[in-house]
Amino acid sequence: MSIDRGLAGWLQLTLTPGLGAAAVRGLLTQFGLPENIFAAPRAQLERVAGPAAAGLSRSDETAEAVQKALRWAEAPGHAVVTLADAAYPRLLLEIADPPPLLYTVGRPELLARPSLAIVGSRNATAQGMRNAQQFAQAFSAAGLTIVSGLAMGIDAAAHAGGLAEEGSTIAVLGTGVDLTYPRHNAALAERIARAGLLLSEFPLGTPGAAHNFPRRNRLISGLAQGCLVVEAALASGSLITARTAAEQGREVFAIPGSIHSPLTKGCHALIKQGAKLVESAEDVLAELTAFRRTGFASTRTATSQPGADEPLLTHMGFDPVDVESLCARAGLSVERVSAELLRLELAGRVAALPGGMYQRLN
Amino acid sequence: MSIDRGLAGWLQLTLTPGLGAAAVRGLLTQFGLPENIFAAPRAQLERVAGPAAAGLSRSDETAEAVQKALRWAEAPGHAVVTLADAAYPRLLLEIADPPPLLYTVGRPELLARPSLAIVGSRNATAQGMRNAQQFAQAFSAAGLTIVSGLAMGIDAAAHAGGLAEEGSTIAVLGTGVDLTYPRHNAALAERIARAGLLLSEFPLGTPGAAHNFPRRNRLISGLAQGCLVVEAALASGSLITARTAAEQGREVFAIPGSIHSPLTKGCHALIKQGAKLVESAEDVLAELTAFRRTGFASTRTATSQPGADEPLLTHMGFDPVDVESLCARAGLSVERVSAELLRLELAGRVAALPGGMYQRLN
Repeated sequence: MSIDRGLAGWLQLTLTPGLGAAAVRGLLTQFGLPENIFAAPRAQLERVAGPAAAGLSRSDETAEAVQKALRWAEAPGHAVVTLADAAYPRLLLEIADPPPLLYTVGRPELLARPSLAIVGSRNATAQGMRNAQQFAQAFSAAGLTIVSGLAMGIDAAAHAGGLAEEGSTIAVLGTGVDLTYPRHNAALAERIARAGLLLSEFPLGTPGAAHNFPRRNRLISGLAQGCLVVEAALASGSLITARTAAEQGREVFAIPGSIHSPLTKGCHALIKQGAKLVESAEDVLAELTAFRRTGFASTRTATSQPGADEPLLTHMGFDPVDVESLCARAGLSVERVSAELLRLELAGRVAALPGGMYQRLN
Repeated sequence: MSIDRGLAGWLQLTLTPGLGAAAVRGLLTQFGLPENIFAAPRAQLERVAGPAAAGLSRSDETAEAVQKALRWAEAPGHAVVTLADAAYPRLLLEIADPPPLLYTVGRPELLARPSLAIVGSRNATAQGMRNAQQFAQAFSAAGLTIVSGLAMGIDAAAHAGGLAEEGSTIAVLGTGVDLTYPRHNAALAERIARAGLLLSEFPLGTPGAAHNFPRRNRLISGLAQGCLVVEAALASGSLITARTAAEQGREVFAIPGSIHSPLTKGCHALIKQGAKLVESAEDVLAELTAFRRTGFASTRTATSQPGADEPLLTHMGFDPVDVESLCARAGLSVERVSAELLRLELAGRVAALPGGMYQRLN
C-alpha cells in the first residue's frame, strides 16, 4: 500500500468505494489529515467509520481513479481544493457537512469573494429571466460573485448576469465537474470555465442523478452570504435551496409577483415565512451591510490566500486597530490589508467597528 | 337657551362653531353627557375647551343646523349614532380620537359586524380591481363587512364585492353623508344606502375638502379588524390608511405584484415594514383567527344592540361557561347568545377558551 502525501491522500479518501461523506468527515475529525488516517490501525478506523473503512486498506482498487484525478488536476484551469487548503471557501466550513474536497474548473480565487446565490425555476417566465439577469448583473457590478446551479431558466440567466461584470459567477454542479449538464447550457458552461468557476464535490465522471441535486443545492446556498429566489413554484428545488440557506443562517430574499402566477407562489411562501421581499438589487445590498461597510470595490483584489495561521490576526492582537496601523505592523499595502480584513470578517474572525476600526474576535 | 335631551344635545355640541373635535372630546371626558356640559358654568367649560367654549352658550346660532339634522335623522334609513349609543362601533372606541357622533344612511346593524377595510388606488389596474372585488366578495361570504371609502378604483370594486354577499359593506365618507362624492359613484352609493351603510362623522352638507380625507381614513381603518391594501403607489392615501391601521393595532395585509408596476410599490413597502403578504382571501381569514374560532356564520345574526350594561355579561360571572349554560341562564337562543359572545369577544370583554367555553374579562 503506497499512499502519496497531500492531494493524492484526499482523493484516495474520498474515492474509496462504500465510504460515505459522513464516514469521511468522521475520520477526518478523529485523525486529522488523510495521511494520519491511512497510517491508523484498521480497528481504529472501523470504530469510527464502520465496516466501510476496510476499503481504505485496499487502495489498489481506487489507485486508478486517484491517478486519473491527479492527471485531470494538472490541466490548466483545473484544481482540487481540499478542506485543508487556504482556498477552501470559509463559508462552507460553517455548514453542517462541508465536502472534503471540491473539483473546480476556472478561477478558484472567486471562492474568496463575497457572493450571493440566485436560484429559481427552470421554466421561468421571460420577465423572470430578465429579472434574474438584471439583478445578477447589478450584484456582480457591486463585487458580489453570483452562485447558481447551471440549470435552464433562472440559473442560466443569473450566471449570464454575473459574467457581465466584475463579480463573475460560480456554477455548482450535481455531476462531476468534467460533465456539464444539461447539454443546453454547454456554451454557458464554457464561458464560466474561462471567466468564472465550475465547481462540484462529486468525483469526476459522476453522471446526473436525482439524489445528488439536493446535496448540490446545499453548496449553492452554503457558498453564499445570501440566497435570492427569483421565480419558483410551490414544490420546487429552489424552495429547498432557500430553506437550506435559512437553516445555514443565510439571509433569504425573494422577488414577489402576481398572485395569479404559479411561479410566484414559492417566492410568496418564502416571504410569508420570513424571507425579505426585494424589489431591487439595492434592497439586497442594503441587507448585506457587512459588505457595504467594508466596500465592495476592495473585494475585487481579495485573491490572496493566507496560510491557516492568519498572519494578519497575529498583528491585530485583541484591541481595536485601524487599517493604517495594521499596514505598518504587517508591512502590507492598504489594498491588501483591506481585502484580508474583509475575508476575516466574512469568516467571523474579525469585526468591523465604527470609525474604521477592526477587532479580532478569535 | 333651551337644550333638548339626547340626540339634540350631541348635535348641538358637535355643531357649535369653532369647537373642534379635541375640545368636544375633552368636554365629554370631563363632564360626561352633553346635557351635563350645557349645564356647566362657562368658566369651567373654558378651562377644558378654551375660548371656543363660549360658542356653547350661544346655542341660537346652531339651533337651525340642529333642527335640520334632527329632521334628517327622522327620514327612513337615516340615523345619528352617538358615542353613548349601544350601536356605536366598539372598535372605534379603541382609537385615539373616536368621533362623538356618526351620521349614517342604511343598515346601522352592520356596525356590529366583524369587518375588514379594503383600500387602494383610484387609478387601479383592471387586475387590481378584479382582485379587490373577488377578495371582498370572499370576505363578505365569510361574514365580514367590507369597509372602504367610496372612491373610484379599488374602493368601488371592494364595495361592489362586499354588496354581492351577506357581509355587505360600509362606505366611510369624507363629506357629509348626504353628499356622495365623487359623482361617478352615485349609483354605487345608492346601492350601499339600501343594502349597506354610508357613514360620515362630518356634519350634513360638509363639502369635499382635502384635509378631511385623512380624518376619514382613520375611521376606515378604525372601524375594521384589519386593513387590506390591494394596489397602492408609494405616496398614496392608501398607505396612510394602512399606517393608521397599524398604529391603531389593526392587522395590515397587502397583495404583492410585479416589481415593475408603480401600483405595487406601496404594497411592497408595507410588506417590508411588516404587513402580511396575502395571496388569497383565505390568507386573511386565517390571520383573523378570532372570527374563525367563533365561526363567521353566526355573525350574520349579530344585529342585536344590547344596552350599555351588557346583560349577557351579568349572566356569565367571571368563571368559564359554555354556550348552552349561558342560553339557559339568559333565556336566549343559541344563535342569539353566539352572536352576542362574538360581539363581546371583538370588544375585548370576553375570551373564547378551548372546548367551546367563554370567560368574561372585564
